[in-house]
Amino acid sequence: MKNIAIMGYGTIGSGVAEVLERNKEVIAKKAGDMVGVKYVLDLREFPGDPMEDKIVHDFSIIEKDPEVSMVIETMGGLNPAYPFVKASLKAGKHVATSNKALVAAYGTELLEIAREHHVNFFFEASVGGGIPIIRPIYTSLAGEEIEEITGILNGTTNFILTKMAKAGESFESALREAQALGYAERNPEADVEGHDTCRKIAILTAMATGHEVSYEHIYTEGITRITDVDFRYAEAMGTSVKLFGSSRIQGGNVHAFVAPVMIGKDHPLYSVDDVYNGILVKGNMLGTSMFYGSGAGKLPTASAVVADIVEALKAFDHHVEMGWDRENLTISPIDSFSFRCFVRVKGIAEKRIKEVEEVFGKVDVVELDHMDEFAVLTKAMTEEEYRLKAKQLPGIRQRIRAEFETV
Amino acid sequence: MKNIAIMGYGTIGSGVAEVLERNKEVIAKKAGDMVGVKYVLDLREFPGDPMEDKIVHDFSIIEKDPEVSMVIETMGGLNPAYPFVKASLKAGKHVATSNKALVAAYGTELLEIAREHHVNFFFEASVGGGIPIIRPIYTSLAGEEIEEITGILNGTTNFILTKMAKAGESFESALREAQALGYAERNPEADVEGHDTCRKIAILTAMATGHEVSYEHIYTEGITRITDVDFRYAEAMGTSVKLFGSSRIQGGNVHAFVAPVMIGKDHPLYSVDDVYNGILVKGNMLGTSMFYGSGAGKLPTASAVVADIVEALKAFDHHVEMGWDRENLTISPIDSFSFRCFVRVKGIAEKRIKEVEEVFGKVDVVELDHMDEFAVLTKAMTEEEYRLKAKQLPGIRQRIRAEFETV
Repeated sequence: MKNIAIMGYGTIGSGVAEVLERNKEVIAKKAGDMVGVKYVLDLREFPGDPMEDKIVHDFSIIEKDPEVSMVIETMGGLNPAYPFVKASLKAGKHVATSNKALVAAYGTELLEIAREHHVNFFFEASVGGGIPIIRPIYTSLAGEEIEEITGILNGTTNFILTKMAKAGESFESALREAQALGYAERNPEADVEGHDTCRKIAILTAMATGHEVSYEHIYTEGITRITDVDFRYAEAMGTSVKLFGSSRIQGGNVHAFVAPVMIGKDHPLYSVDDVYNGILVKGNMLGTSMFYGSGAGKLPTASAVVADIVEALKAFDHHVEMGWDRENLTISPIDSFSFRCFVRVKGIAEKRIKEVEEVFGKVDVVELDHMDEFAVLTKAMTEEEYRLKAKQLPGIRQRIRAEFETV
Repeated sequence: MKNIAIMGYGTIGSGVAEVLERNKEVIAKKAGDMVGVKYVLDLREFPGDPMEDKIVHDFSIIEKDPEVSMVIETMGGLNPAYPFVKASLKAGKHVATSNKALVAAYGTELLEIAREHHVNFFFEASVGGGIPIIRPIYTSLAGEEIEEITGILNGTTNFILTKMAKAGESFESALREAQALGYAERNPEADVEGHDTCRKIAILTAMATGHEVSYEHIYTEGITRITDVDFRYAEAMGTSVKLFGSSRIQGGNVHAFVAPVMIGKDHPLYSVDDVYNGILVKGNMLGTSMFYGSGAGKLPTASAVVADIVEALKAFDHHVEMGWDRENLTISPIDSFSFRCFVRVKGIAEKRIKEVEEVFGKVDVVELDHMDEFAVLTKAMTEEEYRLKAKQLPGIRQRIRAEFETV
């Protein structure tokens, strides 16, 4: 029997206990031994819960118990998750976490401590919920130079954008619906402003390059400025708007950003709807792969944690080399990155098109009925170019970065 | 430096040499050592090729050289691949293969020999080309009871079906095009009759259940009876027809089949087109995941082989427990499995619908203009039920299994 401790008995933590119980036979077979929960650390009591007897309030009980082989961190936040995880690794215990904030902020240090103490620090569940992505990057794609990772990494914003696209809802109304269904928090900022996606793409970029990524260096723009009018144009064009976290790696140059992007039907992420996540990975030999699944949710996320538990416990004395080193990756400024632009302009296309093309060059025009505006789709230009040009054109109401060949 | 030998210098074998050379730095970093090709076994000579000096014609040179840590089998077929792989494992060398026929026929024995000799027998490239699927099943999904694996596993047939769907081509003309492009062989039977898909779903089913699967027990039907007329109905209904290899695992009961299936737009595999592959995996905790990518091709497949090389060489003395045991899995007969059925019937719907519904119960009717026939979509029924009922209805021209809720 291998004993683990779960820190934080919320949604994910209780999900881990549930998966371990419901699938205990297959897990024992894969891990080579039964896996039992010895302690659950939480401030609360859980009378009547199957874990009732295992609840402890003092981390040092876990830290000092040599029978605890592995600690599962599902508390979220940085404090006390960070000191507790650090102490667990130093005590020679494997750690698995679902906490993207922790991994994005302290991953480098925690990976180093794990290496020094010959244990594992795993975080499959921190990105893409139940979608296998961290492990495929360091195993299945081990022979690849990764050139691009682009993901729909946040289920809440993808639900909101899907509602806006399919039901014509406004951002505010779609957000309220997401909150009513429990998909969005009362304070939705971390999701809708792109901060959650930013931490996830930072972790994926560090995995892909092998170097530390400071998430603060990644240009991040959320979805709060996307409107139902944008989606009326998108529908007319057969396109959609998705919140991307993306890294493009070319010749030592890394561009990374979080922003809404307009894509066409032929994009592999086009049909990733609702709370689902999708992650596209482009390798120099492999071409494009795509991973799709439940990006959040109690049991899918818990299942990813359990995969980490099995990997750590089956090769008990084996440190799995993965992650990244201390060298901080330079992220190129977004100013030098190129996109096509979807731009909505006040006025009548017929009257203003000459003026628009004098600024942006040849564009494709999209008009809707009964509007006092029109939209154009420019050729690709750098962010800097766009900013300079846009200043010369009065009446721009919206600009969304676009990635597709033809309308 | 770790030395490997490549057996078979065809498309995949030369691809492996190319990936090892082009990505040598990232591979050395991940494997913890440089990886060099010491021998290439082939009957032919390759004057002017970078591997020219490494060509050998005698397997025993590889077998007897203690410097060769790992053997890559990319010859295809069973003979001499089978005896050579067996001898390599017995000589204490790791083996990776891209050969699905070998794995489907002799996987059980080769996995046992690998275990006994504490080496690894890996075969990521045997299913789904470059798509990571074998490894995710035994690592990322280690905590799951897998309930379903359904895949578009053969690029050739998917290319043909895509041409038929998008360009209205007949089967014969789409097949000729696939042959002209080199996607289909002169003798296309293994692809179009579903034999290739059958071996792949057998391997995936064995991975998912941990037990040996005899591919001969899997009901297998190819795409040769699918016509352009079927696709005209599919277009009218907003559906498509794909060749599925599928296993459904429920309470110890395993149904497996290879057959064309009509699916709707909401199916995760609906938009897997051309030579791409897609594999859907349903776990009891995880829900549905989908893996998408290049199912064939020189470099993507070689990249999957290189991932096996890195995993074997980085944990050099470490046997990775994976695969299946000797217990032969009972595959339930397809007769007891249920599908909805798309059925084309001779005559005029208005006149014959009463007769059709007396046989099949309530159906949805689909009519095209200027046809001497119509189609219906039945409720779900077992294969056996369908067969018995179909006998009572004269003039059935086609039946395609269907999996979708509404038309």
